[in-house]
Amino acid sequence: MSKIVISDVDGVLNTGQFLYNECGKQFKIFGPHDGDGVKILKKHGFNVEFVSADHRGFKITKARIDDMKCNVELVSEGDRYDFINNKYGFSNVIYIGDGLHDAKILKDAYFGIAPADARIEARLAAQYITESKAGNGAFLDAALIILKHFGVKYE
Amino acid sequence: MSKIVISDVDGVLNTGQFLYNECGKQFKIFGPHDGDGVKILKKHGFNVEFVSADHRGFKITKARIDDMKCNVELVSEGDRYDFINNKYGFSNVIYIGDGLHDAKILKDAYFGIAPADARIEARLAAQYITESKAGNGAFLDAALIILKHFGVKYE
Amino acid sequence: MSKIVISDVDGVLNTGQFLYNECGKQFKIFGPHDGDGVKILKKHGFNVEFVSADHRGFKITKARIDDMKCNVELVSEGDRYDFINNKYGFSNVIYIGDGLHDAKILKDAYFGIAPADARIEARLAAQYITESKAGNGAFLDAALIILKHFGVKYE
Amino acid sequence: MSKIVISDVDGVLNTGQFLYNECGKQFKIFGPHDGDGVKILKKHGFNVEFVSADHRGFKITKARIDDMKCNVELVSEGDRYDFINNKYGFSNVIYIGDGLHDAKILKDAYFGIAPADARIEARLAAQYITESKAGNGAFLDAALIILKHFGVKYE
Repeated sequence: MSKIVISDVDGVLNTGQFLYNECGKQFKIFGPHDGDGVKILKKHGFNVEFVSADHRGFKITKARIDDMKCNVELVSEGDRYDFINNKYGFSNVIYIGDGLHDAKILKDAYFGIAPADARIEARLAAQYITESKAGNGAFLDAALIILKHFGVKYE
Repeated sequence: MSKIVISDVDGVLNTGQFLYNECGKQFKIFGPHDGDGVKILKKHGFNVEFVSADHRGFKITKARIDDMKCNVELVSEGDRYDFINNKYGFSNVIYIGDGLHDAKILKDAYFGIAPADARIEARLAAQYITESKAGNGAFLDAALIILKHFGVKYE
Repeated sequence: MSKIVISDVDGVLNTGQFLYNECGKQFKIFGPHDGDGVKILKKHGFNVEFVSADHRGFKITKARIDDMKCNVELVSEGDRYDFINNKYGFSNVIYIGDGLHDAKILKDAYFGIAPADARIEARLAAQYITESKAGNGAFLDAALIILKHFGVKYE
Repeated sequence: MSKIVISDVDGVLNTGQFLYNECGKQFKIFGPHDGDGVKILKKHGFNVEFVSADHRGFKITKARIDDMKCNVELVSEGDRYDFINNKYGFSNVIYIGDGLHDAKILKDAYFGIAPADARIEARLAAQYITESKAGNGAFLDAALIILKHFGVKYE
């Protein structure tokens, strides 16, 4: 039984947007409720891992994921498919992603979930689309649907 | 007659989102009109109190609530139900909240109100859902509906 | 013929939201296109003035209005109705506003305009509601409708 | 065959909004996915150039465009039409824009594209309107439709 949840960060936990000033990328806009999603999955024995392809904003990403007491790996979009397959094997992976490059992973993963406002390519490839938008609770939605999918009763 | 209004902060007075930079959580996005809601309730004899479970962002939350000349208590989500019941008794409390953990409180409070974009669990538990979204006037909507509920004419 | 346009700032030129950090109110989110609206109105002989009731965020407001080469007056919401009437007389004023307290002014002004996402009270009192939301071009919409109302052809 | 893509920045790559503090314009909110759009176009032999009329925020704009490894020219809105025509000739240009002043360029360009939430004037002048909003993937949408228009298969 698959108990590995791998999620993209940008466009799932946040709106995918970034605030620039004259010195470059400074802020990302993370959403509410997703910390609850991580806690619920961990409590029910799931392993939650994050991946990001944003090298320029990786310190921002890491600050957020650290606050959620999870790990995040910096993997380029081109390498992500193989990285996940080699490390975990797709048949074991529940994947959450929103981008053009996530479509292939969402299709081949054991279970693929895309946020409500993911790219159309990702939404078409996913088995489940969350009711909430990215940066607005999409990850908690995903967590609750994962529990339901595995017949785990959330209380 | 209940005159105690207790409101969650994140996801009611603000969008629930937070801006992260490399050093962590830095900003929250508070909305318009809600200061009017607080003033109207106080003017009509209501006691308005805020609670928040966000310890990392509590100083940000407090800066906003101080500007509204109200009090805010830091209470973890797990403790919130008992905290409110022990301190005020649910039969005396009008509660405004948006999260997964608020559902139980909204159900047991004398009167429960959820913002338009609250978690589905909170919306299902509330007696009233505001027309406005969180961080966009949800609290003023709640204030006006409270006055209406108590037969207080707002002028 | 009325050629005086008075506009609220918060909730018209911006989203009405403000970013708080631990030190209080720091940023407001202003929208695109509205600078074009100011230029078009001035070019056709209209006098454009702004009012704001936000004393804590007034320096932020002033920084934006200065960049648009206009004036802004700090007038509390309770005093705004009389301030406008005494200074200009309502029969001469085209007013743009979004809040609870703007409803009365919108109703008594020569011509009242509210942004698409204004408070319901303001929208009900206005003669015209813009297609765009506040902080997303509502003021330019208002400028174009004012020209149309006065039979001025915009090129 | 036209292979020159010229795009406005504000209101295409970002939401068009800017965050002001007491010192003026500080941040712009750029969106996800658009870096993928630039890469895809370049990979298929298109020349991608950006223009902006925002002199106050030009350093912010340049920081973002530099990160995408593209060029951006500061051209006032009044001069943009002639600048593009003189430098490239409209029959060679695919243009992406969102504003009042972009309408004329969108109409005269070889192919004109406007984001979903562009000004109505720009949307009426464009041949194609993206599914995504500005600062939410509009440029990637535009890139994919350009490939489709030219019969280039994206893989």
